[in-house]
Amino acid sequence: MKISVINPNTTETMTKQIGITAQRSASPDTELLIRQSTHGPSAIEGPYDGAMCLPGLLQSLQNAENEGAMAHIIACFDDTGLDAARSLSRKPVIGVGEAALHFTSLLAQEFCIVTTLARSVPTLKMNVLRYGFERRCPQILASNIPVLELHAPETNARAKIADIIRMAINNGAEAAILGCAGMADFAPSLREELGIPVIDGVDAAVRMAEMLASSQLSPSKIRGWAYPQRA
Amino acid sequence: MKISVINPNTTETMTKQIGITAQRSASPDTELLIRQSTHGPSAIEGPYDGAMCLPGLLQSLQNAENEGAMAHIIACFDDTGLDAARSLSRKPVIGVGEAALHFTSLLAQEFCIVTTLARSVPTLKMNVLRYGFERRCPQILASNIPVLELHAPETNARAKIADIIRMAINNGAEAAILGCAGMADFAPSLREELGIPVIDGVDAAVRMAEMLASSQLSPSKIRGWAYPQRA
Amino acid sequence: MKISVINPNTTETMTKQIGITAQRSASPDTELLIRQSTHGPSAIEGPYDGAMCLPGLLQSLQNAENEGAMAHIIACFDDTGLDAARSLSRKPVIGVGEAALHFTSLLAQEFCIVTTLARSVPTLKMNVLRYGFERRCPQILASNIPVLELHAPETNARAKIADIIRMAINNGAEAAILGCAGMADFAPSLREELGIPVIDGVDAAVRMAEMLASSQLSPSKIRGWAYPQRA
Amino acid sequence: MKISVINPNTTETMTKQIGITAQRSASPDTELLIRQSTHGPSAIEGPYDGAMCLPGLLQSLQNAENEGAMAHIIACFDDTGLDAARSLSRKPVIGVGEAALHFTSLLAQEFCIVTTLARSVPTLKMNVLRYGFERRCPQILASNIPVLELHAPETNARAKIADIIRMAINNGAEAAILGCAGMADFAPSLREELGIPVIDGVDAAVRMAEMLASSQLSPSKIRGWAYPQRA
Amino acid sequence: MKISVINPNTTETMTKQIGITAQRSASPDTELLIRQSTHGPSAIEGPYDGAMCLPGLLQSLQNAENEGAMAHIIACFDDTGLDAARSLSRKPVIGVGEAALHFTSLLAQEFCIVTTLARSVPTLKMNVLRYGFERRCPQILASNIPVLELHAPETNARAKIADIIRMAINNGAEAAILGCAGMADFAPSLREELGIPVIDGVDAAVRMAEMLASSQLSPSKIRGWAYPQRA
Amino acid sequence: MKISVINPNTTETMTKQIGITAQRSASPDTELLIRQSTHGPSAIEGPYDGAMCLPGLLQSLQNAENEGAMAHIIACFDDTGLDAARSLSRKPVIGVGEAALHFTSLLAQEFCIVTTLARSVPTLKMNVLRYGFERRCPQILASNIPVLELHAPETNARAKIADIIRMAINNGAEAAILGCAGMADFAPSLREELGIPVIDGVDAAVRMAEMLASSQLSPSKIRGWAYPQRA
Repeated sequence: MKISVINPNTTETMTKQIGITAQRSASPDTELLIRQSTHGPSAIEGPYDGAMCLPGLLQSLQNAENEGAMAHIIACFDDTGLDAARSLSRKPVIGVGEAALHFTSLLAQEFCIVTTLARSVPTLKMNVLRYGFERRCPQILASNIPVLELHAPETNARAKIADIIRMAINNGAEAAILGCAGMADFAPSLREELGIPVIDGVDAAVRMAEMLASSQLSPSKIRGWAYPQRA
Repeated sequence: MKISVINPNTTETMTKQIGITAQRSASPDTELLIRQSTHGPSAIEGPYDGAMCLPGLLQSLQNAENEGAMAHIIACFDDTGLDAARSLSRKPVIGVGEAALHFTSLLAQEFCIVTTLARSVPTLKMNVLRYGFERRCPQILASNIPVLELHAPETNARAKIADIIRMAINNGAEAAILGCAGMADFAPSLREELGIPVIDGVDAAVRMAEMLASSQLSPSKIRGWAYPQRA
Repeated sequence: MKISVINPNTTETMTKQIGITAQRSASPDTELLIRQSTHGPSAIEGPYDGAMCLPGLLQSLQNAENEGAMAHIIACFDDTGLDAARSLSRKPVIGVGEAALHFTSLLAQEFCIVTTLARSVPTLKMNVLRYGFERRCPQILASNIPVLELHAPETNARAKIADIIRMAINNGAEAAILGCAGMADFAPSLREELGIPVIDGVDAAVRMAEMLASSQLSPSKIRGWAYPQRA
Repeated sequence: MKISVINPNTTETMTKQIGITAQRSASPDTELLIRQSTHGPSAIEGPYDGAMCLPGLLQSLQNAENEGAMAHIIACFDDTGLDAARSLSRKPVIGVGEAALHFTSLLAQEFCIVTTLARSVPTLKMNVLRYGFERRCPQILASNIPVLELHAPETNARAKIADIIRMAINNGAEAAILGCAGMADFAPSLREELGIPVIDGVDAAVRMAEMLASSQLSPSKIRGWAYPQRA
Repeated sequence: MKISVINPNTTETMTKQIGITAQRSASPDTELLIRQSTHGPSAIEGPYDGAMCLPGLLQSLQNAENEGAMAHIIACFDDTGLDAARSLSRKPVIGVGEAALHFTSLLAQEFCIVTTLARSVPTLKMNVLRYGFERRCPQILASNIPVLELHAPETNARAKIADIIRMAINNGAEAAILGCAGMADFAPSLREELGIPVIDGVDAAVRMAEMLASSQLSPSKIRGWAYPQRA
Repeated sequence: MKISVINPNTTETMTKQIGITAQRSASPDTELLIRQSTHGPSAIEGPYDGAMCLPGLLQSLQNAENEGAMAHIIACFDDTGLDAARSLSRKPVIGVGEAALHFTSLLAQEFCIVTTLARSVPTLKMNVLRYGFERRCPQILASNIPVLELHAPETNARAKIADIIRMAINNGAEAAILGCAGMADFAPSLREELGIPVIDGVDAAVRMAEMLASSQLSPSKIRGWAYPQRA
């Protein structure tokens, strides 16, 4: 079963990194189509990048669908272009942020998201509201560590993220979502250290996409996600 | 991988029927433990039955956990006892109603539930609110056909349910959830007739439980679902 | 007029203590039937205990109804089994937590709950949402003092609770609810010290139950609280 | 125990009628102070009247407090001036609409209000939101019968109101609130005919005011309802 | 084009000060009718004052309408009497608080209000909810500086307000509303110091009232704001 | 003062029509820059078109900003690209749908939107939620008349829209928003026929943009709308 994982930016090292993470979560009988936007910005930081990447993202998704993908993953925690992709595709599409929220809500009553920069928080807050998790996920916290510095020793990112989650636990969180693919490596040790579920969105999305694809159920094509008239 | 499917009532024919439905959705490498409450009411119709079934349901779940179940399904659309079960178990637990809501929210922006009797609606409405789907699933509709009459030719249940869903589509639904395991057989033909996703909760729950179990992530045991002190 | 006060656990000293508190609030012409669950756990700490106590609680309530109770109080701040009890009974049933919330909302615009352990917070948060008080009662705070240690001198519980309420006042609370029957004794001195209404749930519930019983209005028996078919 | 019932308009026949209704609900040891605004409009129909009545209403409430009232009822379903009155008084104050909402929420999970004119609906909707009952009381329905015609035989008001409540039951209501003191006489026969709780606000308010007064708890005087600096 | 600016209190120095602020924001072709309540309290601090000012406020508004005002501004951040005024007038009416909220929501995704005293917060919170800004404006913060001391050097009000806004920025605010006309002078320097939009309600209200008046659209006079029957 | 009006599609006749409507609402001293996306789809019907138009829309907005536009209008009722545009620009940006919602909320307590096709409803519903108008604007109704047929005599569009609004009035609406620029011509006669405010989004947006531009207040550039790092 083919499932596409589409990095909406055009930076190949990130695409590869996402691919490695995704592969770890995939079932043996899943063939991942690791792709990136055909053209567009080299990173998605804020709504302007999120808009500019869309034509390349949608083109890449269409290509993957033509190759036989049975489900698609938008591998950006902002879930950029989710409705457009769902309108374009006849297969299930899931965003990494959305997947993490649904997945975590089955493992904890209340949880938090730790993201990189404060500028990402409003978009995530809006997504959380839109999906219906505003009471389940009331804390969306910025670590203020840019994605590219997450693994620089001097930022001490893992420890800083652990401290943020500890604070969130004090305020009611029972689990934590890592709101950036670059943080995925920290998940296992954070789980151990903090004693709570720590969820990586790419992992959740691969599992959810496999589940959706194997169900052979098609998304609704009436109203909001009807096929475009000019695709 | 063992997954338990626990019918909270004690009617063996229903347990068997649920087992047949569940088996259809399970992966080849899943071993379903089809169980029912060790004791308690013969059907769950309303909150009194929902309360009285709990000790038998929790005993049955504990037994299944001892047998090696890696995840548990509470096979009642009311999701009765979900928090108690999550507190008791070290493995993921999912309710059939909850599973259907999460699953459908990935296939449609807005959807409805069709249930049997009007007396079930308030409990489902509260669950929908609690999980966060009150804007995604604003229509919870009773067919007024009791579960035991769903397959009696004279109730014409399938056609009546199709009419209710059609009305829901006019009011904004893009997909429908069948809020009773006894309706599962109608799903394929309703999908074809209505051209929208029609979701059966047992199917959704089996797929979600497999996904959760294979992830090897444990539910949070701090705060709300901490282990009982006297189990 | 007979009103039952049902302690859902089976610890007689607690039942007696609740009875003393309740008696203080009752009108002279009220006869309180102080009862406990006929069988079940010795304390209600979390949703597993909350589930296991239900058959004994409902049996006890049925017995009290047979003795002529005109209203029932579920004397646990979690309001466990409220819907099941309302389905079973033809008389008004009120939970101690619910009573405190309604009562306090007539005495202050915004208020807090102080409970014992953090594990109780999620259940209370869900109840607050369900009843509609999520904006009126946004702060649900754990003292982290177990119920049995509330009166041990070394925990300094009264002073600790006063500090928590002071903090809540700074964050907008105008009144406080004591979310545990064991804290009832602290209410008068906390009122004096803090200068705000401090509400004990048993007191509120006794007054509300008397009010409901004297009105001779019966609860709705259609839909959500219809009589069980197998009681 | 003295409790004031203040009709915010200045029409004596209405004040008397409210007094008769209130007296029916009062305990033998309650002395009702039946009052009306010292000056102001002769009826409260819409927010302009609701504003113009306030000085006379507050003067009358102050007078009643000076006479020894231990609680006050604002006998208008709009609950006009509730916050101002609560700021002025050191005793509990309750509005007739607010009382009905709290009372009914203990007797049914979901309920409706039937009011007189469509122009009243927005104010009631705002009150319902403010108190937190927007999910419990989603249906606020106008009968389009003016208050003065409620008892004219040709309007057939009782039957019309029964029809409206029947429709509300079909849409999920389990109980009904009569949103106008002039409808109080219809309550007993509507209860019998429809088989659900039908609540009159004056009745609910008298019982709630007695309950609050007998508790000897004072309302919060910090923040929102602090004493005026210039009363 | 004439626009009335009505100070609901009767303190002439405040009326003049509001007039100076309003004049700064008005277009050259706008003639401002700077008015105050014809009678009533000398300041609006809390709901009692807010109620007592209404007859004088509404009289003053009626007078301004007779003089040819094409729109009206209620120059109190509490928006006291807004519905009554809208019912009375055939022209658009806008409150200073409401204007600030709408205006700011076009300049920032999330923002805060800084007000004077804690006693004002509950009324503002209710207004914010009522207009629909509860998610956009979650922080309503009291400086605890009374209006008359805002310009006393020893209160150091401007610096204190800057500190409060800085804290709000850390908690997610992207802009700030000054919730008191007396703070208007601080706006320009706060903007510069903090680098975010800082909105004064009188400024926003004058611009919005000009916009509404020039559109020549009349407010709805059906249902909630229908003309009073006894004005 | 220059204000840009950007049609996000690339159909020149629509751009001209929008320009004519906008010009009617503009002040004499406003110079409208009527623009369309530099490239992209010929119409915006659903989220795929809404995504594909963004690079051309943002390029066009940047061009207008370089020409000296002091504010920008996105002339599509879906408000597509609003956050991206606000991130890119240093000037206020307003969407036609958003403008209509704010404007109408000052003229009526509750109102409806009439749009063209059912497929547009989910996007509008999400925008309404996001801005905070979900309680003010609960009815979003499709006329099922495609934009290009709005003026074909045989669709009888004006009469059909009048009927839809009448139904909405019965359900609580006090004003109506025309959710498609092509309906703007119907506004004056609908106002007269129905006796309520009928709002055209382009008209509202031009007036709001003038107001924002003349205030010389800049949008917040911290967090959500911070400048892109790669524009």
